[in-house]
Amino acid sequence: MNDTNETIRSLFEPESFAIIGASQDPRKIGHTVVRNLLSGGYKGKIYPVSPKGGIVLGQKCYADIREVPGEIDVASIVIPAGSCVEAVRQCAEKGVKNVQIITSGFSETGNRRDEDEMVSIAASSGMRILGPNIFGMFSARASMNSTFSATGILHGNVAILTQSGALGIAMIGKTAVENMGLSAIVSTGNKCDIDEADLLRYLISQDETKVILMYMEGVKNGGDLIPVLRETAKTKPVIVIKSGRSKRGAMAAASHTGSLAGSDGIFDSIMRQCGVIRAGTLEEAFSWAKFLALCPKPGGDRGVIVTNGGGIGVMATDACEKYGVELYDNQDVLKYVFDSATPSFGSTKNPVDITGGAMAGDYELALSAPATSEYMDATMALYCETATFDSENLAPMIRDTFKKHRAAGKPIVYAIVGGESVEKAMVQLKKENIPVFNDVEPAVSCMGTAYRYFRYREQITGDFDMADIDVDRINRIIDGVVADGRNFLLTNEGQEVMMAAGITIPGSAIAKNIDEAVEKAEKMGYPLVMKIVSRDIIHKSDAGGLALNLENRDEVVAAFEAIMFNCRNYNPEAVIEGVELAEMVSPGLELVVGAIRDGAFGPIVMCGLGGIYVEVMKDVCFRSFPLNRREAASMVSEIRSYPLLMGVRGEKRKDIEGVIDAIIKVGTILKKCDRITDIEINPIVVYEQSKGLKALDVRILLKKS
Amino acid sequence: MNDTNETIRSLFEPESFAIIGASQDPRKIGHTVVRNLLSGGYKGKIYPVSPKGGIVLGQKCYADIREVPGEIDVASIVIPAGSCVEAVRQCAEKGVKNVQIITSGFSETGNRRDEDEMVSIAASSGMRILGPNIFGMFSARASMNSTFSATGILHGNVAILTQSGALGIAMIGKTAVENMGLSAIVSTGNKCDIDEADLLRYLISQDETKVILMYMEGVKNGGDLIPVLRETAKTKPVIVIKSGRSKRGAMAAASHTGSLAGSDGIFDSIMRQCGVIRAGTLEEAFSWAKFLALCPKPGGDRGVIVTNGGGIGVMATDACEKYGVELYDNQDVLKYVFDSATPSFGSTKNPVDITGGAMAGDYELALSAPATSEYMDATMALYCETATFDSENLAPMIRDTFKKHRAAGKPIVYAIVGGESVEKAMVQLKKENIPVFNDVEPAVSCMGTAYRYFRYREQITGDFDMADIDVDRINRIIDGVVADGRNFLLTNEGQEVMMAAGITIPGSAIAKNIDEAVEKAEKMGYPLVMKIVSRDIIHKSDAGGLALNLENRDEVVAAFEAIMFNCRNYNPEAVIEGVELAEMVSPGLELVVGAIRDGAFGPIVMCGLGGIYVEVMKDVCFRSFPLNRREAASMVSEIRSYPLLMGVRGEKRKDIEGVIDAIIKVGTILKKCDRITDIEINPIVVYEQSKGLKALDVRILLKKS
Repeated sequence: MNDTNETIRSLFEPESFAIIGASQDPRKIGHTVVRNLLSGGYKGKIYPVSPKGGIVLGQKCYADIREVPGEIDVASIVIPAGSCVEAVRQCAEKGVKNVQIITSGFSETGNRRDEDEMVSIAASSGMRILGPNIFGMFSARASMNSTFSATGILHGNVAILTQSGALGIAMIGKTAVENMGLSAIVSTGNKCDIDEADLLRYLISQDETKVILMYMEGVKNGGDLIPVLRETAKTKPVIVIKSGRSKRGAMAAASHTGSLAGSDGIFDSIMRQCGVIRAGTLEEAFSWAKFLALCPKPGGDRGVIVTNGGGIGVMATDACEKYGVELYDNQDVLKYVFDSATPSFGSTKNPVDITGGAMAGDYELALSAPATSEYMDATMALYCETATFDSENLAPMIRDTFKKHRAAGKPIVYAIVGGESVEKAMVQLKKENIPVFNDVEPAVSCMGTAYRYFRYREQITGDFDMADIDVDRINRIIDGVVADGRNFLLTNEGQEVMMAAGITIPGSAIAKNIDEAVEKAEKMGYPLVMKIVSRDIIHKSDAGGLALNLENRDEVVAAFEAIMFNCRNYNPEAVIEGVELAEMVSPGLELVVGAIRDGAFGPIVMCGLGGIYVEVMKDVCFRSFPLNRREAASMVSEIRSYPLLMGVRGEKRKDIEGVIDAIIKVGTILKKCDRITDIEINPIVVYEQSKGLKALDVRILLKKS
Repeated sequence: MNDTNETIRSLFEPESFAIIGASQDPRKIGHTVVRNLLSGGYKGKIYPVSPKGGIVLGQKCYADIREVPGEIDVASIVIPAGSCVEAVRQCAEKGVKNVQIITSGFSETGNRRDEDEMVSIAASSGMRILGPNIFGMFSARASMNSTFSATGILHGNVAILTQSGALGIAMIGKTAVENMGLSAIVSTGNKCDIDEADLLRYLISQDETKVILMYMEGVKNGGDLIPVLRETAKTKPVIVIKSGRSKRGAMAAASHTGSLAGSDGIFDSIMRQCGVIRAGTLEEAFSWAKFLALCPKPGGDRGVIVTNGGGIGVMATDACEKYGVELYDNQDVLKYVFDSATPSFGSTKNPVDITGGAMAGDYELALSAPATSEYMDATMALYCETATFDSENLAPMIRDTFKKHRAAGKPIVYAIVGGESVEKAMVQLKKENIPVFNDVEPAVSCMGTAYRYFRYREQITGDFDMADIDVDRINRIIDGVVADGRNFLLTNEGQEVMMAAGITIPGSAIAKNIDEAVEKAEKMGYPLVMKIVSRDIIHKSDAGGLALNLENRDEVVAAFEAIMFNCRNYNPEAVIEGVELAEMVSPGLELVVGAIRDGAFGPIVMCGLGGIYVEVMKDVCFRSFPLNRREAASMVSEIRSYPLLMGVRGEKRKDIEGVIDAIIKVGTILKKCDRITDIEINPIVVYEQSKGLKALDVRILLKKS
């Protein structure tokens, strides 16, 4: 483990770097990589490798990597796909620590064989592989630019991991436009070996990296990624763009738990669980990353909007609600703080409206107030271009008030709307890494994202809760199912699993005679239902073998006699095994609770509104398992139907603790019984607080053998 | 009516323009307005008015507007608020057609008295008032810039109506940055007289205006606005930004219909009904307006994505789903059309991936294909910056392929991601009004908005459907309620209104003796419930005055006897009026159907998921009434629970036609009975197709007297 970490560290901070396929031809990638390493200021040893030998950009070229005299931390491979397996073998022989395979033409085009072979060669020598099908990487700490595409990458605090090469290169361009410095950018490509989890483990402890931005298309080993993401988000914001929301669609699973999830529903829920912020667009991702890289933790929830226009102030108020930014509303304090900065026809209410007559000096005054006031924690400053404003003072005013907020350790964002001069000011200030936007929503969304992240950090607890279930009993049930050649459980088997996990099911018992019937009915409680049990009587109702709504001992006695009499009359040949007594389930709130083994993320638990609403409302929520009670509780409170559990229209609060228990129980079953792939309880009827739940219908599926 | 239209035309196309408060002092608004009129190239007569007389910017200044020799189409008033009433009076005397009151300090600061007086003075002479509290307006046709703030406004095809002055001025600045030409911009301010409806009536028929962009904070007379918006959207896209989503909150209404609506829910639904496109941000509004001003109507739904990167292609696919852009997927045709433009390791599937090696020439080839192919209707072109691309050819390639699409009458949008040179190309191309963006979502959202608008236009029908209801009977019921001093209807009164409207309620009858009971039961059908009717017996159940689930004549007879016997025993003094027979309602899907009289928009109908889910799921939809069956049907299909009506899990389709009938019936009641303010049927139980609905619980409120 430690060794692996050390190896990945050497990927980011190599002391020596070989390029297999180095070339004297400036049009070749094997030339560009060497040139970029040199021009990027890489200080380690550079070893070009090419059978042609000679000199590449002043560096001695080796015919074979095994001839290189010293140790090699990283070898970049840029030769044609057909020669890569052999090159990887030679690297392994040489004891190279990491290879970056830029070459494409492997699993992404269906050539899985060569890719697998390279992985197995590398594994046997402890060597790690980045790629293949990548554009290389950049690491600020080592001033190492081993990409074939980008030059002049700015050093800074954001690390980018990208699965798309084309988008990654374009993003590097965008970082220059936005003046967003990078601590690293890594092209992950086919992720045949090194994946996001490996890279994050290094970035967690790397001081330069303040924010991590990931572009992902798919998750290969989510079970490994989840704990690393959780760990990373404890100290550094992680922003992810994941495409393919619409593409991958619902999983071909037999249960609703599976089909409801789709991959994106699960991905989204799990990112939230891990404290990862999901961006919808590149613009959002970049704005948030830049902002969070420099954003101080707000001291509290008291946000204030300062504006020179009412309309834009209302738009910001709307955006605050959308992005979860609370607005401070103690009118006395607001008046006290802003009175001197606000003309009489303005407003000291929040939004504070310093009116269209405000000049830069008025903004200075108004924006310095929240920076120094102990009553305010975050500022959103809005400016609409006016005819009278001293526009040459706009940028200096923003610089100054930004500095004051920074000095006070408080976040501030600016939205400025107007013509050419406003646009120019914005572009310039953005380059100075001051969060200025030309629309309200991107400004407020940055602030909201910061709040969301820091709120998440405050809630983190490391524990997991597992339920105490009878695993042996469940395994014995599964043994029986497997022996029977099935991969699904029958109703009674599912009910027995519920019992083994301590999830209540409706009471049921078989009685062979009146005395047993009375004894079991008294134990079960009333009202109850009685049904004939006989393989020879299919239509129980037609046979008079059914009695509903029995409310006491006498009715049970009478019903037993009537059922026996009717059924013997109906079919005198029938072999009668007895009479089943079943609890009549009283109505309650119908939820669905389930667990599935996701191909990418492993055990997932789910809860939501059940019954017929399950597919229609899709009001369900997912989490990776294991989790703790607090997380399970947040899951329950995330579903839209949560108010139904809290009690609406004078109804009492439902047994939410019972729902949390049930979630942890089904999760524990799935976790501890690895032959189970799907558990779905729908509906599970929830009663009033402390009155419990009842699992009415249980579906359990096993791995196909 | 015609006169009014003519007056508003003269507001946009005045032949003469007076400025009350004209000034020689360049720092005064009364100077700037004259200067802007002159510098904007206004060709009509300009009459500065000021008691000081003299010359303002070369124009003779009159001491009193009544001294001006000719007719005056528009007078702009820029004097202090205290003198405005008198100035309006003088304008009315002079016979001025329109006044623009720039001055503020009226209803927006609580001074409603002066504002009302100005309105009444104007009304008496047929003069119209724009404002007060505005920055003026601009009209390209008259080259009239009567604002006090903006110069050099570009002439073009977008008309802006803005309720916020500050934002309006800032937007003018933004139009210059974006090179978005305006046909008009009007500051509506307090809308004391002229409102959006008046202005739209002019803009509908004005050729220069291709798109209308409105910023609104509130709606004053929605009943007037709705038909004008509908009419406008038939030929011109209308984009609206409405702020205050979070602020105005739920209306203080007694019924759920009211409180659920909030104003924003109603606003949003009605805009959709009118074909108006609602933008969430300024950026969106501007992008969409610019795009729609030039966008040809797509010939069909066959969109195609051309990209040089897989990642960005997937992002665009996601965005297409989000914004309703269909992607063409006939693989054979795609291969045929794109084969020559796509390298073997690319993909002719949609997204068409011409790979990271694509040069400008390859893009030319690939993007010319859909322009000329009869199989494709709309193109989304994506470019990720690459190291090898000939970037000096990027802008020319885009210009050329844009021109080809334009020539073929097909829409195209571009998203280009990368560094400084890409950013520069984007800024330049935007100025040429080519739809180029630096992120995927804004590009695709433009295309989606165009599709949404043109799809709406295809669905327009002008008819309204009204229900045949017994208005006299309802009015008699209301007379009784009013006479009783109530503003709410009792249960039986509400049920009678339902009957008068032809909405089925559960059967119910009172029987005074056994024969009546049997007769009425036989008529009503089984199963049914019987209850004692006596003012002296409150707790019917305790008294043995209740019998459930009666299934035939014999049970009715037995139950009648038992109830009478029990109740006479329970309270021998009780006056017994008879026994109520009530239908036992079988379970079905519980919806809510209602109608309210909205303060801003007038009659509104509503439907959604009912029962206990109504507040929790907020799965409701609104429309302005009257409407036609098609619109009512679209309303039903918009709710998330629609699949429940279509039948899930093997259930049959429900009586959707009955729901549509019920919506039109409650709307008709509200429309025709103007004392009613709220009708809410919750739940209304919906059965299988053609099996009808039953209104279980009806709440009807009247206007407070």
